[in-house]
Amino acid sequence: MKIVKTISRMQSLSDEARRQGRPIGFVPTMGALHDGHRALIRTCRRENKLCVTSIFVNPLQFGPDEDFARYPRPEKKDVLLAKKEKVDIIFYPSVKEMVPTGFLTTIDVTTITAGLCGRFRPGHFRGVTTVVGKLLNIVQPHRLYLGQKDAQQCAVIRQMIRDMAFPVHVRIIPTVRESDGLALSSRNKYLSREQRREAVWLYRSLQAARRYIGQGHRQSREVKRFMRRLLRENTKGRVEYIACVDPKTMQAVTHIQKGTLIAMAVQIGPARLIDNIIVRS
Amino acid sequence: MKIVKTISRMQSLSDEARRQGRPIGFVPTMGALHDGHRALIRTCRRENKLCVTSIFVNPLQFGPDEDFARYPRPEKKDVLLAKKEKVDIIFYPSVKEMVPTGFLTTIDVTTITAGLCGRFRPGHFRGVTTVVGKLLNIVQPHRLYLGQKDAQQCAVIRQMIRDMAFPVHVRIIPTVRESDGLALSSRNKYLSREQRREAVWLYRSLQAARRYIGQGHRQSREVKRFMRRLLRENTKGRVEYIACVDPKTMQAVTHIQKGTLIAMAVQIGPARLIDNIIVRS
Repeated sequence: MKIVKTISRMQSLSDEARRQGRPIGFVPTMGALHDGHRALIRTCRRENKLCVTSIFVNPLQFGPDEDFARYPRPEKKDVLLAKKEKVDIIFYPSVKEMVPTGFLTTIDVTTITAGLCGRFRPGHFRGVTTVVGKLLNIVQPHRLYLGQKDAQQCAVIRQMIRDMAFPVHVRIIPTVRESDGLALSSRNKYLSREQRREAVWLYRSLQAARRYIGQGHRQSREVKRFMRRLLRENTKGRVEYIACVDPKTMQAVTHIQKGTLIAMAVQIGPARLIDNIIVRS
Repeated sequence: MKIVKTISRMQSLSDEARRQGRPIGFVPTMGALHDGHRALIRTCRRENKLCVTSIFVNPLQFGPDEDFARYPRPEKKDVLLAKKEKVDIIFYPSVKEMVPTGFLTTIDVTTITAGLCGRFRPGHFRGVTTVVGKLLNIVQPHRLYLGQKDAQQCAVIRQMIRDMAFPVHVRIIPTVRESDGLALSSRNKYLSREQRREAVWLYRSLQAARRYIGQGHRQSREVKRFMRRLLRENTKGRVEYIACVDPKTMQAVTHIQKGTLIAMAVQIGPARLIDNIIVRS
């Protein structure tokens, strides 16, 4: 496994692979790798000749009051996990390499970024699209692997790729969960034992919503109220949003249908947690 | 020569050339090709195995009161010229192909775009960078050819390419001029015979400024005043701006040095004309 720190070296390795006709798969991460990342990497490995993972805690996607400084950075553990999963290349640039002094460019996607997480994290998606766009130019992958847990991020990146004609195919991989249902996230580390017990109620409320919808309650307002009540009764968390939206446009729907995305963000103690499901019928 | 209308076809031709290790050169244009474009194409041909020219009158880079509708589109003549110059591929997409309904993404470069043309054409450079970024993803060139006449555009695109790590080398080609010095431009077609006579004063005032600077007048304010007087005395044109700037950052300098860019925009009748020189000593 190669650990590549510079853009120029990564680009020449990608050039070489492309010249040899070896399909490149790419898993962008912020490190603190867990089984969710592992699922992305395994699919990437299976579907490509060259499997590239980037580890970059992207300062542009954190707000000034967010957790950039304390975001976990377990370098050695990450490298070991990647090696064990037979990643071919870790692209591991410094902040200076990716966002040097005098950096003046941004990529923006409108509309899709306005609601949900975008409403509570102004500038977040601009940071995501700017850096993911740059990573695509550096790694030049044939396939990009993203986790369904970040549903809005998936929609935003897909839109950017379509609009800007990045020559890459996007693959969305299902959310990986703990045995009790909590979606894996690097931010779960922030939780105390009690908060960890409460955190499972994100997924429980989503599952309960699915059953509730199955019983014929298809008004978004009603379903959201139902979920809020469950969270209020079972956690001390602060609900940032619960949204019933079209999974491509992220526009709210009043009536829930097959394919509707139900997404949520809840602050539990020091951790801002997100989760979502797609309504199946 | 191939004429390619779709993004997917262009991308597969570029993929093929890259797999074969054939260097791709790219000349983006808005058509109405003239000897300025010809100079770009000839250098591109000489330096690459595959020479790609795009013809796309980019609606995103025109303001609502600008000349998008009347911009010349001599399709047959353009195709003939390209053929004669041995262009391998003309990428000739429709507006719908490049900017379909539901297009939501922009690329922005700050600071460099604020002054000069950016001040008088709000949104212009956002339109340029968004579409040039997209064209780079489609054509995937090794080398990009731009004309020095659009000095600010060159600086903005260079900055975008550096910031976003587009894997392409930028080549800037000197401005091509009529025998009397007028910089070639598709917009020269808008000029009446009298306006055409006046238009030469853009370059004459730049040359006069060069001599004036050579005589020791190095204060930007003094040189700009000198140029304005020449233009006022010899044309009925309206000076939009005359600027003495650093050619990379487009930031104004008070004292003119070797390498300073003197750039100007003048409205002469229906034509907004631009020109510039770099101070040589």
